[in-house]
Amino acid sequence: MKNLSSIFYGGDYNPDQWPDEIYQEDMRLFKLAGINIITIPVFSWALLQPSEDEYKFEWLDKILDLAWENGISVCLATSTAAQPSWMSKKYPEMLPVDFYGRRRKHGGRVNFCPNNEKYHEFSTKLTGLMAERYKNHPAIALWHIGNEYGNYCYCDKCEEEFRNWAKKRYGTIENLNKKWYLNFWGHTIYDWDEIVIPSGLSEVWMDGWTAKTNFQSIAIDYNRFMSESVFNCYKAEYDIIKNITPEIPITTNLMGTFKPLDYFKWAEYMDIISWDNYPSLTDPMFKTAMRHDLMRGLKDGKPFLLMEQTPSQQNWQPYNSVKRPGVLRLQSYQTLAHGADAIMFFQLRQSIGACEKYHGAVISHAGHENTRVFKELTQIGDELKALGDKTIDSRMQAKVAIVFDWENWWAVEFSSGPSKDLNYVEQVEKYYEAFYNMNIAVDMVKPEADLSQYKIVVAPVLYMLRPGVAKNFESYVENGGTFVTTFFSGYVDETDIVKVGGYPGELRKLLGLWVEEIDAIFPDMSNSIVMKETVGKLEKEYISKMLCDILNVETAKVLAVYGKDFYAGKPALTVNNFGKGKAYYIATDPEQSFIAGLMEVLCEDNSITAPFQAKAGVEIAQRFKDDKEITFIMNYNDEDVVINLKDENYIDLIKNKGKKGEILIKSKDVLVLERKI
Amino acid sequence: MKNLSSIFYGGDYNPDQWPDEIYQEDMRLFKLAGINIITIPVFSWALLQPSEDEYKFEWLDKILDLAWENGISVCLATSTAAQPSWMSKKYPEMLPVDFYGRRRKHGGRVNFCPNNEKYHEFSTKLTGLMAERYKNHPAIALWHIGNEYGNYCYCDKCEEEFRNWAKKRYGTIENLNKKWYLNFWGHTIYDWDEIVIPSGLSEVWMDGWTAKTNFQSIAIDYNRFMSESVFNCYKAEYDIIKNITPEIPITTNLMGTFKPLDYFKWAEYMDIISWDNYPSLTDPMFKTAMRHDLMRGLKDGKPFLLMEQTPSQQNWQPYNSVKRPGVLRLQSYQTLAHGADAIMFFQLRQSIGACEKYHGAVISHAGHENTRVFKELTQIGDELKALGDKTIDSRMQAKVAIVFDWENWWAVEFSSGPSKDLNYVEQVEKYYEAFYNMNIAVDMVKPEADLSQYKIVVAPVLYMLRPGVAKNFESYVENGGTFVTTFFSGYVDETDIVKVGGYPGELRKLLGLWVEEIDAIFPDMSNSIVMKETVGKLEKEYISKMLCDILNVETAKVLAVYGKDFYAGKPALTVNNFGKGKAYYIATDPEQSFIAGLMEVLCEDNSITAPFQAKAGVEIAQRFKDDKEITFIMNYNDEDVVINLKDENYIDLIKNKGKKGEILIKSKDVLVLERKI
Amino acid sequence: MKNLSSIFYGGDYNPDQWPDEIYQEDMRLFKLAGINIITIPVFSWALLQPSEDEYKFEWLDKILDLAWENGISVCLATSTAAQPSWMSKKYPEMLPVDFYGRRRKHGGRVNFCPNNEKYHEFSTKLTGLMAERYKNHPAIALWHIGNEYGNYCYCDKCEEEFRNWAKKRYGTIENLNKKWYLNFWGHTIYDWDEIVIPSGLSEVWMDGWTAKTNFQSIAIDYNRFMSESVFNCYKAEYDIIKNITPEIPITTNLMGTFKPLDYFKWAEYMDIISWDNYPSLTDPMFKTAMRHDLMRGLKDGKPFLLMEQTPSQQNWQPYNSVKRPGVLRLQSYQTLAHGADAIMFFQLRQSIGACEKYHGAVISHAGHENTRVFKELTQIGDELKALGDKTIDSRMQAKVAIVFDWENWWAVEFSSGPSKDLNYVEQVEKYYEAFYNMNIAVDMVKPEADLSQYKIVVAPVLYMLRPGVAKNFESYVENGGTFVTTFFSGYVDETDIVKVGGYPGELRKLLGLWVEEIDAIFPDMSNSIVMKETVGKLEKEYISKMLCDILNVETAKVLAVYGKDFYAGKPALTVNNFGKGKAYYIATDPEQSFIAGLMEVLCEDNSITAPFQAKAGVEIAQRFKDDKEITFIMNYNDEDVVINLKDENYIDLIKNKGKKGEILIKSKDVLVLERKI
Repeated sequence: MKNLSSIFYGGDYNPDQWPDEIYQEDMRLFKLAGINIITIPVFSWALLQPSEDEYKFEWLDKILDLAWENGISVCLATSTAAQPSWMSKKYPEMLPVDFYGRRRKHGGRVNFCPNNEKYHEFSTKLTGLMAERYKNHPAIALWHIGNEYGNYCYCDKCEEEFRNWAKKRYGTIENLNKKWYLNFWGHTIYDWDEIVIPSGLSEVWMDGWTAKTNFQSIAIDYNRFMSESVFNCYKAEYDIIKNITPEIPITTNLMGTFKPLDYFKWAEYMDIISWDNYPSLTDPMFKTAMRHDLMRGLKDGKPFLLMEQTPSQQNWQPYNSVKRPGVLRLQSYQTLAHGADAIMFFQLRQSIGACEKYHGAVISHAGHENTRVFKELTQIGDELKALGDKTIDSRMQAKVAIVFDWENWWAVEFSSGPSKDLNYVEQVEKYYEAFYNMNIAVDMVKPEADLSQYKIVVAPVLYMLRPGVAKNFESYVENGGTFVTTFFSGYVDETDIVKVGGYPGELRKLLGLWVEEIDAIFPDMSNSIVMKETVGKLEKEYISKMLCDILNVETAKVLAVYGKDFYAGKPALTVNNFGKGKAYYIATDPEQSFIAGLMEVLCEDNSITAPFQAKAGVEIAQRFKDDKEITFIMNYNDEDVVINLKDENYIDLIKNKGKKGEILIKSKDVLVLERKI
Repeated sequence: MKNLSSIFYGGDYNPDQWPDEIYQEDMRLFKLAGINIITIPVFSWALLQPSEDEYKFEWLDKILDLAWENGISVCLATSTAAQPSWMSKKYPEMLPVDFYGRRRKHGGRVNFCPNNEKYHEFSTKLTGLMAERYKNHPAIALWHIGNEYGNYCYCDKCEEEFRNWAKKRYGTIENLNKKWYLNFWGHTIYDWDEIVIPSGLSEVWMDGWTAKTNFQSIAIDYNRFMSESVFNCYKAEYDIIKNITPEIPITTNLMGTFKPLDYFKWAEYMDIISWDNYPSLTDPMFKTAMRHDLMRGLKDGKPFLLMEQTPSQQNWQPYNSVKRPGVLRLQSYQTLAHGADAIMFFQLRQSIGACEKYHGAVISHAGHENTRVFKELTQIGDELKALGDKTIDSRMQAKVAIVFDWENWWAVEFSSGPSKDLNYVEQVEKYYEAFYNMNIAVDMVKPEADLSQYKIVVAPVLYMLRPGVAKNFESYVENGGTFVTTFFSGYVDETDIVKVGGYPGELRKLLGLWVEEIDAIFPDMSNSIVMKETVGKLEKEYISKMLCDILNVETAKVLAVYGKDFYAGKPALTVNNFGKGKAYYIATDPEQSFIAGLMEVLCEDNSITAPFQAKAGVEIAQRFKDDKEITFIMNYNDEDVVINLKDENYIDLIKNKGKKGEILIKSKDVLVLERKI
Repeated sequence: MKNLSSIFYGGDYNPDQWPDEIYQEDMRLFKLAGINIITIPVFSWALLQPSEDEYKFEWLDKILDLAWENGISVCLATSTAAQPSWMSKKYPEMLPVDFYGRRRKHGGRVNFCPNNEKYHEFSTKLTGLMAERYKNHPAIALWHIGNEYGNYCYCDKCEEEFRNWAKKRYGTIENLNKKWYLNFWGHTIYDWDEIVIPSGLSEVWMDGWTAKTNFQSIAIDYNRFMSESVFNCYKAEYDIIKNITPEIPITTNLMGTFKPLDYFKWAEYMDIISWDNYPSLTDPMFKTAMRHDLMRGLKDGKPFLLMEQTPSQQNWQPYNSVKRPGVLRLQSYQTLAHGADAIMFFQLRQSIGACEKYHGAVISHAGHENTRVFKELTQIGDELKALGDKTIDSRMQAKVAIVFDWENWWAVEFSSGPSKDLNYVEQVEKYYEAFYNMNIAVDMVKPEADLSQYKIVVAPVLYMLRPGVAKNFESYVENGGTFVTTFFSGYVDETDIVKVGGYPGELRKLLGLWVEEIDAIFPDMSNSIVMKETVGKLEKEYISKMLCDILNVETAKVLAVYGKDFYAGKPALTVNNFGKGKAYYIATDPEQSFIAGLMEVLCEDNSITAPFQAKAGVEIAQRFKDDKEITFIMNYNDEDVVINLKDENYIDLIKNKGKKGEILIKSKDVLVLERKI
């Protein structure tokens, strides 16, 4: 956020759960911890609108004024994530119908049909009233619409709207029959109202946690339609607010790799991205890093806000461990390192009732500042003050991009065959991890992105190619880029119809090969990749699993072959010279050391290097602003490490002192270094 | 039962499944086996009432007369556990609605809405007619209402009644909003009819076999309401019967640690407790012992009836093993040892159709007495005759109490966080096992119980403290008691609202500490408890798992600390002197040897000892009556054991001869010894 | 099929999914591969009948003519497996209601209520129109009704029809109450409309993948009723067609050991059996062999058609491996070896949309003939031409029968107790495997079959004995047969009512023993079978698991006893001389080597031998026709094997040259040898 004077530090505040007496104490503790922003009122619709014709904002006025008097900004939430109980009762069709056709009862949150007109009417009315009331309030720094959207619905209204959506998208019944491949199993239709929404009562079923379907085209389209329907709830509020307070940025809190919503589409209508990050004790750091990069990537690298993390404990995970000393600080700096301009928490004061009462908070149930966690929070608050605006609005500069695509995700996992174990995000993570471990910056991009700034582009398991995507990759490689893709790529178009003539369809020319068969092997089986020649550090043999393409090269060169089974000797890794660039194809699912080795070679070939040499467990990431390079170093290890800054002159931004040469970074410590470039 | 001349021996009898011809043969076999009571007619409503205005008791008259002619008493069942099919058809709202909002069809048993008015009308009418008809029948020894109650319902009528219940409990909407913490997630309501029952369509979902919820307060209250609703079915019949046959005791068969019903509440309206015991081959004996003690504890130690066990095999367990030779006898004596005055079976004659046909029976499918199982049954029958009334109405005398609480159970397991593995009954069992293995008698009591008779009171994971409970514990300790509690205790009040200011809330003063954090560790992780000094046999280090409090002592003394992780050195076991007594706090979930060791120390400190020294696998329990002490010794081992009775003069009640000094108890044998005290 | 000049080779063809332009290319490729039959139109009802009063056959005329012009026959499908969308919309009660009472929406396939009158009306009308239109078309070789039937429904109409069905079967309410054992749990009814269908809302629930119930009798009858209801859909079309084209054989594709339908009943109305075979990579060959034999057994050994297999890959399995080189050919010859006259595929041209697009096909997505799989297909096509009609209508000659019974399957797995791990098909497979590994032919027969041609009859776990079955076995043994049965046999009659007086009920005399108890042991436990004397190769001790009868011999001789537990020394294997024959009883679930050893002894005793001596992994099976013996040898091994034909003169039918003495069969190769007898 351009004009920010310091990093946002604060989080969700729930005074509506407390008596007035406590507010002054809250303010005292907030200031003690260095908090400069509160998000409010996320879930107060019922308080704000006690009945259809009645609104009560006075209590909120008081909190906003109090915050401002205490020098604290407000992220103003529109409170539309949970409609009042009286509203559900009066308009029961506002409640969604679930996957199995059951009308939900009032309860939970984000529990409304996204296509319900009354919901739209009431939510935009409330938002408009709030915007008008608070448009000039000095505390308002940001708008926060709804909360953690994700509500799919399967009601009759949604079915009707889906029919309209399909009509608009496909124009004619004839075209629809073709695009949805409806002659299969005699599903040919003659009228739009023969369209049935795909659900647990029609074409979809759950295979464990994964939805499977008879008609991938319809199921993918329903995801598109639902992602849009939910988005329209957001957008309706956005338009109202933007009209009234055009200067105040608007966001909603996203959830990282959240499958139901195509966030690239959403991002177009978000002034700034924000998201909620809840790693568990055992999640490796690279996974969080990737999600930060993905969220940053939604708006082409613009800084984002971390809207929620927990100060220590979660409540909804199976095992809700406390964060070990220093870990919250490490995670917070990792967040900054990957492009955030805000470190915010759920929640500021710990609830004492309902399901989130054992979720960590800035002010815990103990109710005072004499806790380990509060001390850590205070330290971070102090340090962020020291950083001031030095990192704000700075950008990362990645030479590597990894393609990520929600529609492809849906398509891959709706697929019937070849292997139930194929998980799109896991595949992407493998490539991300390889770069992460080398401390090489990565942008997460959509397939249609402008790739010209990248030296390496990796598109793992890009099964679905929308129109123009293959061309985008071809142009990129023609101009000298290095492109990597894998098995199960290029199979289908945007309606999940196979491109015949040999996989990977439109990528065949770029890759210089065609895939004849794709073998699915059982979890207790493996094949191997045998290098034909040494490629960087890659030599000898690597285990591969799950899927093995049996392919025929056309113009590509074979770098490695299978070591086992009847396709031993057939290509497992190829490279194709294309224009000024190269296109690699990985025909199977290799062990991580193979991916790491290959990505290392590609980085060497492209002269992409880490900022510093560092041992494992040390993450280094950089942001750039004007003529400054800001380097974040996080030592996740249980041991101290030494890093050689060489002769460069750096400023330690936290301690505000110079650094050069060999420096020691203690276990669990962080360093933020600025250098003029 | 006070005036009983010998232990009840018999069980559920189903002549309604057989032609008349077989009855005489049944009587012959019953007498052969020593049977003196039959329970009938548990499931004959449809036979007794063929239509709305028609009743047929003649066939039942015949059976009752026949029993009496053969010297057999009758436990008269009211037959209201399964309404007739015609009734469900005519009054479909009698059928319950399930957790997912589906109206059940007729079938199964205990398949009615507990709040249905027609059910109440018809069940009490039948019961009244039976009571009038048989009030003077000499065979009637006992009333048995319904059968294994437990029917939760989620219908509109239940929703309406739940609203009334809540109104009565909370008085005002304002108070309800506060007690249910409804401002959370904007659930604030303005009208009673905005209350929605918690179900799979609103606020509850299943996580494996455990229900989880957004609003613990509502979910716990729905359990309270349902436990009461079902109880009201029982009570309605109770009142009718009591009015007509005030002298005949009334019971219904409970099911041990059965989560849906708060049996402590039920017990107030039961003249005598009875329950059904179905251990599997691999259940350790201490688990059954604990359930006997719990059932006995429901009415403060009054003897109970074992209403059902199987002579050998079950049908509904995954693996229905036969009982090994001697095991039925061991289990029967264990039951007596823990306070029973009846040993009864399901079933007397084995069904030949439907789902219980492979459930063991006194008269098996073979149809005659020449079976291993019948011979064992006959032996037990003979022995019980020998015992006569010697054990009847005798009491156990425990110096140790373990607190057990249904509402706490619900609250602990509805909790969102800290660990999904926290299982209330398992935690209680750990402490019970420690005493059991020492052959030290335990009473299972509710938190509000009068504790003055106990030297040790253990309240594991007592997360919810109802009003007065903390005071009860404080008074107990002040007066010299030894109190033990654990992690996750004292967090919330009776509406699941956290007591702020540091856990364990109202127990903080008694325990002399406050808990700052509670760490949940993964199943493959562990910490350890390191003794600061030797406490009894406890020395060195013990593994601990699952949950680890990080706490600060105030007045308590630290006896042991954690051995690992960032809280190594912080207290894991503390003791606080309070008045004349001591209060122990176990901050984590230790391995069993630690609990055993600590309980042993506490017993030594309080001079609590076992009746005899015995090796593992020998259970010893005592009952007392007038000036007699009756000692039951069960040798579960595959080897004989020797026990030294010292110089005391005992009478072997089964063989009616004297015993003293060293005696041999054969493998799988039992001994019942009487001594004058 | 009697007048066939060569084996059918072809499969499901879907030109309705493709533009006209492709048809000529399809014909070219079909002929290249040797294809002589296409199945069409399996799923084109919506195309054939665009609205209630409109039919369009022209496109189909064209395809049929084109096929015939290219010398290709047609298996004419009636297209009634998936009704048009407009039909479901107009007649919503055509859609089935699922196990949990939810009306399905249009979608999937075989998604109609089998008792829906409109479905019957429309399906028979379409079939009639097709039969009239094509009755003289020269291409039509075969009728294919519906597709993979199996649609259970739980709607009100089905409930009504089930009541009628029960009334017809049981005559009086009194008899119904008795046969369904309705006095149990007070289920006694007084009116037919008190019958409730057994479902997830009444008496049935899922225990993992197995349905369990309170009332086995009702559940088994509902399966009978549903199997019949679905059959009636088939039969209605059959009758229409048979009337119009009496000469053309009619079939529908079955699915091997498919639990919902009693295929023995269906077979009576099928002119020729056909079935779909989809083994996965890891399925052992004997399992497929058994299913071929079961399908052949449905019509007493008449040849069957393999209607579907995949050329390489499946799509709906968890791991859809490609078939290794040679495997398709091995599987195809195995099919012929077990009695097939057709080798057909799903699918001829690979779909490019919907859920079967990654299912293998003769013409793959590559779209041409230059693939490994197409080459294998062509080789098989060429070889089948070489075989001509030599194997057609030949029969197998088995001396061993294994009893298989659907109703027994239902009854065994609906049973509540003794062990949840008891799986009927697995038990049958164990005995089948023993004979298969010896290359001894087996017929799979129903319990009522004429057994006079067999020397050995094995009836594993024949829990349910319908009237006459025990007599059938007794007569068979009296006349010199060797009979084998196992634990959990003979318990109940056809309504699942126990035969009292000692298991195995009506088989007690034949076996000369009675079973007193049946112990269920846990999966991690075992017992052992200790031979009392050496029986063939059986000596010493064998592991046994799951269930252990504790039995008393009457006239039987004890061959082996238990080695452990309290029933050590009690009989585990017995034999009873009965008339001229012998009846064996296996009292527990032994390890496979025991079963193999025992079956080997029985074969030796009965002079049953394999055609040739062969090593493991070589399957040998024979068919006979007139004075010819045709021997199929499949070498599944990764190594070549040698077989000694001795001095006999054989003709290699594929290569059309003589063979004798020692011959080499390469790894994965097959041999078809003809010899005059």
